[in-house]
Amino acid sequence: MKIAILGGDGFVGWPTTLHLSDQGHEVHIIDNLSRRWIDTELGVQSLTPMDSIQERCRVWHKTTGRRIHFHLLDLATDFERLKAWLVQERPDAIIHFAEQRAAPYSMKSDRHKVYTVNNNVNATHNLLAAMVETGCDAHLVHLGTMGVYGYSSVGAAIPEGYLDVDVETLDGSVARQQILYPTRPGSVYHMTKSLDQILFQFYAQNDGLRITDLHQGIVWGTHTEQTRRHEQLINRFDYDGDYGTVLNRFLIQAAIGYPLTVHGTGGQTRAFIHIQDSVRCIELALQDTPKAGDRVRIFNQMTETHRVRDLAAMIAQMTGAEIANLPNPRKEAPENDLVVRNDQFLDLGLKPITLAEGLMDEVIEVARRYAYRIDRSRVPAVSAWTREQEAQIVHDPEGKGLRSVS
Amino acid sequence: MKIAILGGDGFVGWPTTLHLSDQGHEVHIIDNLSRRWIDTELGVQSLTPMDSIQERCRVWHKTTGRRIHFHLLDLATDFERLKAWLVQERPDAIIHFAEQRAAPYSMKSDRHKVYTVNNNVNATHNLLAAMVETGCDAHLVHLGTMGVYGYSSVGAAIPEGYLDVDVETLDGSVARQQILYPTRPGSVYHMTKSLDQILFQFYAQNDGLRITDLHQGIVWGTHTEQTRRHEQLINRFDYDGDYGTVLNRFLIQAAIGYPLTVHGTGGQTRAFIHIQDSVRCIELALQDTPKAGDRVRIFNQMTETHRVRDLAAMIAQMTGAEIANLPNPRKEAPENDLVVRNDQFLDLGLKPITLAEGLMDEVIEVARRYAYRIDRSRVPAVSAWTREQEAQIVHDPEGKGLRSVS
Repeated sequence: MKIAILGGDGFVGWPTTLHLSDQGHEVHIIDNLSRRWIDTELGVQSLTPMDSIQERCRVWHKTTGRRIHFHLLDLATDFERLKAWLVQERPDAIIHFAEQRAAPYSMKSDRHKVYTVNNNVNATHNLLAAMVETGCDAHLVHLGTMGVYGYSSVGAAIPEGYLDVDVETLDGSVARQQILYPTRPGSVYHMTKSLDQILFQFYAQNDGLRITDLHQGIVWGTHTEQTRRHEQLINRFDYDGDYGTVLNRFLIQAAIGYPLTVHGTGGQTRAFIHIQDSVRCIELALQDTPKAGDRVRIFNQMTETHRVRDLAAMIAQMTGAEIANLPNPRKEAPENDLVVRNDQFLDLGLKPITLAEGLMDEVIEVARRYAYRIDRSRVPAVSAWTREQEAQIVHDPEGKGLRSVS
Repeated sequence: MKIAILGGDGFVGWPTTLHLSDQGHEVHIIDNLSRRWIDTELGVQSLTPMDSIQERCRVWHKTTGRRIHFHLLDLATDFERLKAWLVQERPDAIIHFAEQRAAPYSMKSDRHKVYTVNNNVNATHNLLAAMVETGCDAHLVHLGTMGVYGYSSVGAAIPEGYLDVDVETLDGSVARQQILYPTRPGSVYHMTKSLDQILFQFYAQNDGLRITDLHQGIVWGTHTEQTRRHEQLINRFDYDGDYGTVLNRFLIQAAIGYPLTVHGTGGQTRAFIHIQDSVRCIELALQDTPKAGDRVRIFNQMTETHRVRDLAAMIAQMTGAEIANLPNPRKEAPENDLVVRNDQFLDLGLKPITLAEGLMDEVIEVARRYAYRIDRSRVPAVSAWTREQEAQIVHDPEGKGLRSVS
């Protein structure tokens, strides 16, 4: 297959690119390299030493003999070039990662909110409109997030995309209607993914576009089978307060003797998936192709759920790190349950890597190995959801370590 | 009250401005005049002779002694100026009409789709982000549309914004959850209003913004009590294939002896409201102020429903016009029922003007009076929802009149 990977320079995009190239597909990365620009803006860098995308593609070719094609293109602003590219290359499948993906970054300031909405909505919509206009019938696979649902469930399992509801009709009988499972996003970033869902519904219905939307959990882990093949193929690893996800941040804190910073009670339950399983799920989703006229296919792409405080305890036990409880900069329920259906991927053959078996590798192979590259001052989370929460943030500009305040 | 009317130069914005100014409020119009630019793009004009916004404001002052302030500002692109304006003026209420509002225009080409999404989403989101950033606690009243729900109901009445659904919890019991009534927009334009709903939900929840969303039906009628006061205060009247709504187009067709063009079977049921009731509803919504932390208040702003073919028959009977059945350029169900709850406005005291009593006025006072200004070639609808539908459109570039083809 000829596959376009939009956002193929990113944290999940890059290992997906290698995984699919390794399977013999002709892979094209389309990326505006915005993630590297944001590193520059924030003055942070990947823990793992990361080469330019051009160099990465060169090393992959040298290592495997396979070519990855890179195209510098901004989906949100280069609509005409996007159309021209689709007409010229006629991809069989398009995998869409090309969105600003950090909730704290999206809440950092009004400018970051505006950027995230403008970039993400226009990127997705331009892609859809361009596919219709150029008659491109590629299968579109989009990376969404479990976070669209918020974390205030009523104790029911989150189904895969759709919910049956019974409504009372005018004649007093009851009719069953199938609706998109209602979203309740908790950040501007998550909100944009909730908007995407409506864009997909419309274009599948009006134009028969074939779309799969993957509602992904928090991805952990760094290496995949392909990124291990050469030091210069290594994946990025973010640990800063904006782009570092909870698990990465705990790993780094443990590696430098900084307390594990748990926000609020740590009773927030989140869904997780290992990066190797994530690329495998994308491969499985590509094989399961919808037909024109089908509703959007939605998978929950996660393998296990954990409370934040349990993760902290797990890593504290492995490493001897201490735990510090800080005020939560996010506006969210202090405690929540989360049960997620993921039968579809299990039925397609996914065999998950569990945190219990894979976490120690991360501690040793990634966090300790690259600990010399850590900028301690970038570890605290400083983007707040509201002004009230901003006032409570405990700052540690020199990275000396934070004590519990709650 | 000091009230900002975003999009106050438009078809509903202008009479709303006059209505609220007449009641003694300090009214500020913020508008980028995009509707006038689109007239220029399409080569069409309002049936009624319409002066510049500056001239309209001058005439209103001369006629009533009241001032309307006009600010040329593009919400979707002038984020910094918008914030500066909010800080300087501190409005008590903001009424938001500032979106591209025609479904056929939004489907005209890929460029029009991209423009509509980019303009509407950024306008609404910039406004919300600017209100939060500047600490503006104005009551925001937004003009949405009944069309977000699509027209494929299962025969149940459309409630006012929210639906109770019962979900089975993990322990086997049933929990009731209140969700936004699910949308199923039928055009790119309607889709943007469906996106707005999610933006509102997020900002009400995260930042305590006080928001009322009015899901309006198709507005008919031209004059309100205030627009009648001077020839130069007249409201705009669109009859072209993109911006003219079904009733206006029938009226114009009847006035020039063109057949009433019914698309498909005419079995589409739509919701309607007179322009005088529309401005009255906005007044009522302004009086009923939500508190910070309240969920978004949603009203269905419509007063009656009719099938398109019944409207055609009503106007044919009044005027002697013929009816022509043409292929439908929209992708939609050929026939649908529509029952809409509008108890909230009725409870607040709305006394609707019915089509049966008001329509003859439109025939005489507007359509026949200005018939000499009609450009016959602009009457047919030529924007199609898909390529298949585009191929079926019957063109009539010289405006000679179309015969039934079905």
